[in-house]
Amino acid sequence: MRIIIIGGTGTIGSAVVKELSPRHEVLIVGRSSGDLHCDLTSEESIRNLFIQAGKFDAVVITSGNVVFAGFEEMTSAKYHVGLNDKLMGQVNAVLIGKEYIQDGGSFTLTAGILSCDPIRAGSSASMVNGALEAFAISAAIEMPRQIRINAVSPTVLLESMKKYGAFFRGFDPVPAAKVALSYSKSIEGLQTGKIYRVLA
Amino acid sequence: MRIIIIGGTGTIGSAVVKELSPRHEVLIVGRSSGDLHCDLTSEESIRNLFIQAGKFDAVVITSGNVVFAGFEEMTSAKYHVGLNDKLMGQVNAVLIGKEYIQDGGSFTLTAGILSCDPIRAGSSASMVNGALEAFAISAAIEMPRQIRINAVSPTVLLESMKKYGAFFRGFDPVPAAKVALSYSKSIEGLQTGKIYRVLA
Repeated sequence: MRIIIIGGTGTIGSAVVKELSPRHEVLIVGRSSGDLHCDLTSEESIRNLFIQAGKFDAVVITSGNVVFAGFEEMTSAKYHVGLNDKLMGQVNAVLIGKEYIQDGGSFTLTAGILSCDPIRAGSSASMVNGALEAFAISAAIEMPRQIRINAVSPTVLLESMKKYGAFFRGFDPVPAAKVALSYSKSIEGLQTGKIYRVLA
Repeated sequence: MRIIIIGGTGTIGSAVVKELSPRHEVLIVGRSSGDLHCDLTSEESIRNLFIQAGKFDAVVITSGNVVFAGFEEMTSAKYHVGLNDKLMGQVNAVLIGKEYIQDGGSFTLTAGILSCDPIRAGSSASMVNGALEAFAISAAIEMPRQIRINAVSPTVLLESMKKYGAFFRGFDPVPAAKVALSYSKSIEGLQTGKIYRVLA
């Protein structure tokens, strides 16, 4: 398969590249690094990516920003960062990408454990991850041309504990390599409308 | 208690009014009808509402619009209607309302079954309801002054089957009066961070 990995230079993304590249042709997409570039907050940039990519069978999105801040500091504008970036960036990649993807292709989104296991300062991440998971299961049943869509929803990464460990006390972290297996299942299997919750 | 019911003129809202008004002082808020008026898409309008309302102990929100359309017709702009109206309308009512609500007060949001049981043309509703549920459970753990927050997530209403039945084939509808009980539990009980899924 020919697989586009948007966010392929990040922690999860590079683990997905490592998992898939022995068996597939992988196109790594970063905001400013990688084989191709894309700014997920720009619909024009997303469309340019898919036009430049040529034929492809799967799209993985492992990127997206949200604001982490205590609830008392959160504002409508801070929630909109996550809605416009991580949520609608991934959704727009699906809306636009489905015009270009091969029949029977797949989209694999990245949500996260905070959708159902919240932490301090994580209310925007919870909101966005909950929205992405519900979007994946609902979009799946209406996808044209046997296109599939799933979401991977991992707990905190082992590789991120140095930076974010203080926010995730008591969480059992998982190595990115284990999270990458769910992307493989989503792309190389036939399931659709699934949320793959990856715990240690 | 003194309870503000935003959307109190709608199908769920009026059932909530009926359930609570024998025991509490209820302020019905509509966009253009009711005791007080509020446009949930305007932060200024929300703030004016809470200033006008005087002291209050609970806020219920049973209103919010999303676009229902087949996935092939959905665009980023159509998803933003639901994000700006039903999602951020309810979230902004919490963000602003918490400055004015009494200690130990409660917010009760309205999501819906499509968060986990999707239908044709419902991907925006699924997205928004998933976001609202995750927001409620995450905001709950950071609320100041013993303020509580829960979300009611009902299946399709019996009262709505004439209008929406064709979209909800196979769903067992529930009367609004039964849905109203969950608002009572949220307001008159002590639970927080709960999603009350109301099925028949």
